[in-house]
This record gives sequence, C-alpha cells and structure tokens, in this order.
Amino acid sequence: MEIIRPTLLLSKEIALKNIEKMLAKANKLRVNFRPHFKTHQSAQIGEWFREAGVKSITVSSLTMANYFADAGWDDITIAFSVNIPEVREMNELAGRVKLNLLIENIEGLEALQQNITWHTGVFIKIDTGYNRTGIEASRTPQVDQLLERIQKSPLLQFKGFLTHTGHNYYANSTHDIFSRHFDALLKLKSLKSRYISEWPDLMISLGDTPSCSICDNFEGVDEIRPGNFVFYDLMQFKLGSCQLTDIAVRMVCPVVSVHSSRNEVVIYGGAVHFAKDSIVNIDGKPLYGRVVVEIDGAKTLLDEKNYLHALSQEHGILKITPKDFNHFWPGQLVEIIPVHSCLTANLMKEYLTTEGETIKMMPLY
Amino acid sequence: MEIIRPTLLLSKEIALKNIEKMLAKANKLRVNFRPHFKTHQSAQIGEWFREAGVKSITVSSLTMANYFADAGWDDITIAFSVNIPEVREMNELAGRVKLNLLIENIEGLEALQQNITWHTGVFIKIDTGYNRTGIEASRTPQVDQLLERIQKSPLLQFKGFLTHTGHNYYANSTHDIFSRHFDALLKLKSLKSRYISEWPDLMISLGDTPSCSICDNFEGVDEIRPGNFVFYDLMQFKLGSCQLTDIAVRMVCPVVSVHSSRNEVVIYGGAVHFAKDSIVNIDGKPLYGRVVVEIDGAKTLLDEKNYLHALSQEHGILKITPKDFNHFWPGQLVEIIPVHSCLTANLMKEYLTTEGETIKMMPLY
Repeated sequence: MEIIRPTLLLSKEIALKNIEKMLAKANKLRVNFRPHFKTHQSAQIGEWFREAGVKSITVSSLTMANYFADAGWDDITIAFSVNIPEVREMNELAGRVKLNLLIENIEGLEALQQNITWHTGVFIKIDTGYNRTGIEASRTPQVDQLLERIQKSPLLQFKGFLTHTGHNYYANSTHDIFSRHFDALLKLKSLKSRYISEWPDLMISLGDTPSCSICDNFEGVDEIRPGNFVFYDLMQFKLGSCQLTDIAVRMVCPVVSVHSSRNEVVIYGGAVHFAKDSIVNIDGKPLYGRVVVEIDGAKTLLDEKNYLHALSQEHGILKITPKDFNHFWPGQLVEIIPVHSCLTANLMKEYLTTEGETIKMMPLY
Repeated sequence: MEIIRPTLLLSKEIALKNIEKMLAKANKLRVNFRPHFKTHQSAQIGEWFREAGVKSITVSSLTMANYFADAGWDDITIAFSVNIPEVREMNELAGRVKLNLLIENIEGLEALQQNITWHTGVFIKIDTGYNRTGIEASRTPQVDQLLERIQKSPLLQFKGFLTHTGHNYYANSTHDIFSRHFDALLKLKSLKSRYISEWPDLMISLGDTPSCSICDNFEGVDEIRPGNFVFYDLMQFKLGSCQLTDIAVRMVCPVVSVHSSRNEVVIYGGAVHFAKDSIVNIDGKPLYGRVVVEIDGAKTLLDEKNYLHALSQEHGILKITPKDFNHFWPGQLVEIIPVHSCLTANLMKEYLTTEGETIKMMPLY
C-alpha cells in the first residue's frame, strides 16, 4: 500500500511481543492481567490480547466499554470515577457484561444505588499521590462511610481498592518510579489488611506502564492494569520503561519543504496527527518526536540533534543538522517516533500495520 | 437533549453573526472572501456560509477538499504547499472543481507538471516572517524560476502570491498584529507590483483571523482567508480578535469529584476532548479553558482565578477559589470556554447546537 499522507504505522510483531512479555510478567507475579485498552482503542487489536489469553480489560469511558462489549469482551472495568450523568447507561451495560465501576464519593455511590438494577462490581478509587481523583489513602473514615453504604446495597459488590500512580509520569529517574510504586503499594496493602477480615475477597488493583515495566515488587497485588505498553513511546523510553526498539508505532509523514538556511525541514504531520505532548530534549527545548530516515537502503534513527521541534495544525517542523540535511527532500517519506502514543493513536483513528493491513479504531472517544 | 458526557456546544446564533460580520468586512474592503473551513470541518456549517453568499473556500488538506467537494463546493484552495505524494489524487479533484494549489519549490511544481491533466490554479506560497513554509518574499530569483516554468505549463494557471501571517499568533499586543500584518501586506504588494505587468490577473491572498478581525488596511489585497473567526476562542480573545461574547463554542463537562483541600474540581473532559494548547494565565501558569457555571439560574463566567489548569487523557482539573467552590458538586454540568477551538472541534468530531441539533464533521482529517 502506497503511503501518501500522514499514516500511523504499527508493527504488529513488536506489539505482540509487548503483549506477550507483559502477560508473562503478570503470570509470574500471579496477578490478574486487566490491560487498559484506551491506548489502542481497537477491537481488532483487542483480539491480539484475547488470542494471548487475556479475558478481562480496563477502559476509560462508558463509550469505550460499550464498544468493547460489542466486540465480545464481558469483563470490563471502567477505570474512571463514576460519571453520574451516565449511570443509567452504565446499568444497561451491567445487564450484559461483568462490569466494575469506581467510586470515590457519596454522590457517585448514591447515583449507583438509585439506578443500578444488575449485579455490579465497585472499586473504591484511592489517591496514592497523583492528586487527581480518589480518596487519599489515609482518609479511612471516608472509606468507612462508603463501605457502610455499599453493605446495604445487595446489587453492588465491593471489589476492593484501585489506584493509578499517574505521578510516575513526572518521575525524574527510575528510582523515582520504584519509590512511588512502592509507596502506592504500601498504601493499598495497608487498606487491604485493615478491611480484609470484613471483606475477604477484596482486591488491590494498580500498575501503570512505567511501574509494570520497571518494578518487580507486586506483593499483595491482585491485579495490574497497564495500557501504553502495547505500543510504548518516547515518553516511556525516557522514563526507562522500554527500549527504542520496543516502540511499535511510528507516523509516516511526507516532507513538504526543506529550508537549509534555518536547518529546518517541514513535514505534513501536525497537531491534528501527533497531539501536542512533548518531552524536553537535550537542548532544553520541547521534542515532539524523533526522526527515522532511509540511509543507504536502511531505516536509520537519527540522533537527538535531529528532532520534531514544533507542531502547528497540519505542519511539523524538524530541526535537522547540516550533516544530515542531505537525507531530506520534498515528497520523500520520513518516519517519526511519537512522544505519547495514546494521544497520537486517538487522533489518527486507524493504523496501517507493517504487514499492510488497515486496522480501525472506535470512531468517537 | 440531555448531556451526559463531554459535548461541544455550539451557538449557531453567534457563529452566524461571526460569519455575517466577516463577510460584511470583506465586502467593504472589496476583497474576495475565501474562508478557511479547517476550523469547523463540517458540511452542515458550510451551508451557513453558503446561505450568507460565500462561494469560495480554503481547506488545509486534500482529504478536506474532497469532503467539501462532495458537499457541493466547487471553488477550493488547498492552503498547504503541495504534498507531492498526493498529486495524482489532486488531479482527480481538479477534474471536478476549480482547484487552487500552493507551490514553493521546483519539486512540487514538477510533480504538478507531470501529473496534472486538468486546468488548475497555482499560488506561490510566500513566507512573510512566520518561518514555516514558503519562499521568503525577498528571494525573487526563486520566484522567477518557478514562474518561468509555470509559463510553459498551459494547464497551470498562475493565480498570484499567498501568505499566512501565522506569527500573529505569537503577538504580544494588538500593535504587534498591526505591524506584522502591515509588513506582510507590503511584502506581497511589492511582489505584486514587480510581476503585475507580466501577469495582469495575479492576486494577493492573505488574512488570518487576528489580522482580519483587528486590521483595516487591506489595500492591494484581492482575497482574505480567515477561518477561526467562525467560532473564535480564548487565544483569539487574548490576542484582541474578539470579545468573550463572540466565542461560539463551549465544552459541557460533568463534574467528577471535588477536592476542597486542594481547591480543585475534577471534570470529565481531558486532552482527548480539548487538545493541549494553552495560554498563560494571570498567575503565570498554563490555562486550558475558562469556567462557566450556573449561579442563581444564570450562566456565569467565573473570573480567571478559576480555570482549567491541567489535562490528562480524559480528566481536566479546575483550580477553583474557596469563594466559588460551593458552585461545584459531583454530577453537575459545567461549561468550559476552550483555548483553541480548531483543535478542540477536530477532536470532538461533532457539535450540539444550543438549539439541540447534532452537527457532524468530516470523520478523518
């Protein structure tokens, strides 16, 4: 298939290897593997997980839960503190799959109590330091208050405590990730030991891509939910979660113009293709992607002095050193390794595999 | 219609007023009005322009050109320096509409000469200081070289010089916009006077939303191509292009949780809904949106101390002052005025008008 415009290229081989590796780790740790499907958002890619033996999944919205339920998944956790206006639609889904929801306040729990007519699992969302959603782990009176009410709701089954250690993404070193993961683990284990006698089946669910890729201590954990690892990206590479060769997606972009006077190459590929997450490059400037070009017939990753350094709506600007400038000309295709594969995939809405197959994603988030 | 998840609300009334006002300005200036449709990306909204009398449009990709050609538009400029791999498909479109393309280098022109079999208009893209694409206005030998070759191509009709004064978006004051616009105008006028004797029909095409909203001197200009003005947004408000009451779009977001201990409210609405452009708030921090809540039955815009200050994939975090904190509770709907309406609309893929109509956009960019 001829590529003529920005196209998200996916190496099925690398993605399968990433899935296999994480599943093996979950098995070794004896934890349930409930991968997050918000990164790939594709029923077809979901099948790769199913074929590997995965049976339970995580999603980030009811829309996504419905999409994957339609694709045959019947054990789904919506890892987003319950969005009250959607509760009636959540109940419809609970009628056809094993559904787990997250609560963190009385209002959310009351909305469930008033609207849920099917057996539904409920996790209490715990904030272990990310400071976004959840009850702070130390605030057990709030937990008690929720559990007291859950006990009175025969349809709501308390599943346990769930956290997302999102502050791992701001880590400055692998050591930071170890210590944040360990801190989250201790907090959830302390909750587990506090409530296990009353709720003998309660679970601990945690594990983002950085911690699941880097850490080995998951003692007491019952379930991990990494998502990004299926593709990885430059942000994960920078955090130490993966090697560059583990990154499964690249954006193929045509070169539009070359401007040697300012060491810049303009590509067709902008904010509507990549999204605008960046990491800090060695020169202190934002980096939106790294550049792969064909040199002497071999795809070659250029060093970090050559990088995607600016994005407008459809254009990207590459900074290219004089030494490498001769590898670029108008009409040529280059490959860009993205910084944040979740947001990039979300914009592109489809993949082209290196085997030439087009893979669709859910149409709306 | 009940809103239960992030929804892009569009005031048709304000959008129609914005269209009418810009069209009136174009008529007064006696320039052709060729609005850019990349902001709204919707055939239905295109009809609002058509009903106002607009006949020619600008788009930013061949995909978008095909979409609007299918919707009945037959005079289209693709304002993106020709993407060589797509030239054969461009030729197909040139067979069914009046198509204008942009060139800035020999490679692009040669691709057209080799593949175009229908009459096609060609603008030379001029860089007037944005430093993204185009030939620098002073480099007339490069212009001569292109014109010499165009002259030998009977199917390619030279239309004139086109620029995008994108550096207006980095302006620090209205005065900056005046001076950048005037500088671009002088550069294109100088090219016009240099080449008009040989090419008596050549046109000057410029005019982004800031300059078309703020400036009045368009002497010698033949065509303007603003796009964002149909919706405007906080970035345009900050630049001085519009009043807050001219902004036609708002994102309706459910509140997920309230965290008074850190003066934060978490909403369902993140990077996959808003995109990640920000402006600098009065506290020096990035601002991703401003907040409208209902107070005593009236929708009320809160001051800038209350704002959308962080975005992850699906979550947004509002900073809310203690004084205003009582206006927020889980399950409630709030409205957020976005920073960059083009990228926000591009992600949402549909609008709900304040009259309750759902409006679709093109499915892929």
